[in-house]
Amino acid sequence: MTYCVALHLDKGLVFMADTRTNAGVDNISSVKKLRTWSVPGERVVTVLSAGNLATTQTVISLLEERTFHPSERDPSILTQPTMFEVARLVGSTLREVVVEHRGMGGPDSEGEFGATMIVGGQIKGMKPRLFLVYPEGNFIETTVDSPFFQVGEIKYGRPILLRAFDPTMSFEEAVKLLVVSFDSTIKANLSVGLPVDLHVYVDDSLEEGEVRRFERRDPYFAEISQTWGSALREAFGSLPDFEF
Amino acid sequence: MTYCVALHLDKGLVFMADTRTNAGVDNISSVKKLRTWSVPGERVVTVLSAGNLATTQTVISLLEERTFHPSERDPSILTQPTMFEVARLVGSTLREVVVEHRGMGGPDSEGEFGATMIVGGQIKGMKPRLFLVYPEGNFIETTVDSPFFQVGEIKYGRPILLRAFDPTMSFEEAVKLLVVSFDSTIKANLSVGLPVDLHVYVDDSLEEGEVRRFERRDPYFAEISQTWGSALREAFGSLPDFEF
Repeated sequence: MTYCVALHLDKGLVFMADTRTNAGVDNISSVKKLRTWSVPGERVVTVLSAGNLATTQTVISLLEERTFHPSERDPSILTQPTMFEVARLVGSTLREVVVEHRGMGGPDSEGEFGATMIVGGQIKGMKPRLFLVYPEGNFIETTVDSPFFQVGEIKYGRPILLRAFDPTMSFEEAVKLLVVSFDSTIKANLSVGLPVDLHVYVDDSLEEGEVRRFERRDPYFAEISQTWGSALREAFGSLPDFEF
Repeated sequence: MTYCVALHLDKGLVFMADTRTNAGVDNISSVKKLRTWSVPGERVVTVLSAGNLATTQTVISLLEERTFHPSERDPSILTQPTMFEVARLVGSTLREVVVEHRGMGGPDSEGEFGATMIVGGQIKGMKPRLFLVYPEGNFIETTVDSPFFQVGEIKYGRPILLRAFDPTMSFEEAVKLLVVSFDSTIKANLSVGLPVDLHVYVDDSLEEGEVRRFERRDPYFAEISQTWGSALREAFGSLPDFEF
């Protein structure tokens, strides 16, 4: 599994992805699942991916190849006119790979080669946009009512997002929120683990923003993990006990 | 889906189960998933069930029939000599039903007719015990290191259990903990819903303890849901923001 989240804030987009990948429980390694393409002053696109690693790596490589050798391998992420078209391109590439890989499997391989991706960014003169792309290649976009996307092992870290997310929050608070959500997930599930990658895109900056990797012993991550445990127990203690 | 939890406290066993059952999203109804058998002064057994409703209802009915007409339908929950044997009986009955129902399905029906059950209670002269029974009929027991079981839609409500559970807690705190865990799950997932059933078994009482149903507008449930939201946001606010 994997865990990736992207928040659509009033001030910009915040992306976080873990790096754990596993086949069973005894074949674990680290792979970067956050990839950014940018042409400073013109566009920034970040893609997060969860699902079958052979599928997601192939999709990213195809997008990459078609971006850096665009003369012969159109279409490219860097030449799409809108973020909507970028999402369509990621969707069609994902679908192409999933269909091809499924053909290699047996009759039960439906789903096995699937992947889900988050695509977000901004192109000059247009608003920043954030999409969630399904293995079928279709996609949905954030709205005022659902202003963030999660993919992968989403359930453990969802309650805190539902309770504490606020589109007006600062980037500093947003990163804290993501660290709490990731920490809850990591505590409960072996298939999600540090290091965790972060990209903070500031609206209208049109350049790659703060990029950071939280390593296994990152002091901020460790501090949040510890203080969140105590703060949670304290919050829990402050609620009225049940009376029989 | 469903959500059921049983806690093994130093003072006793606390069981909670929701009542939502659904086939798709447009065929929803309420079914009790918590069932207690007791012979006051001799034994108390509670069973919680999650999974295919046809399977779990058949298992409970078989256990029931064999209990109340034991002369011709041995073995019965009320005649097993130990809680271990009670768990074996529930396991073998569950396996019997799952295997039979699977035989009715197509080749892809593996798993579809499955169910998982929690069995806990006490028999006179022995310690209270708590088991989780798999669809294959085998089972595990709580230990000092894993003193609670969840079945069904377990992920949303797991982080708070991991952080706040303490075997020395009072029954009043334990019910509060379960309400918080259920509330987080209900907020995030349509397939879990109120009403919620509770049974609190006090060690060595050898009789059914407090039984309570939290209805859709239960004031305590509503109060916890609301104050937990604020307490969580406050706890979150008290953590140090990330600094770039």
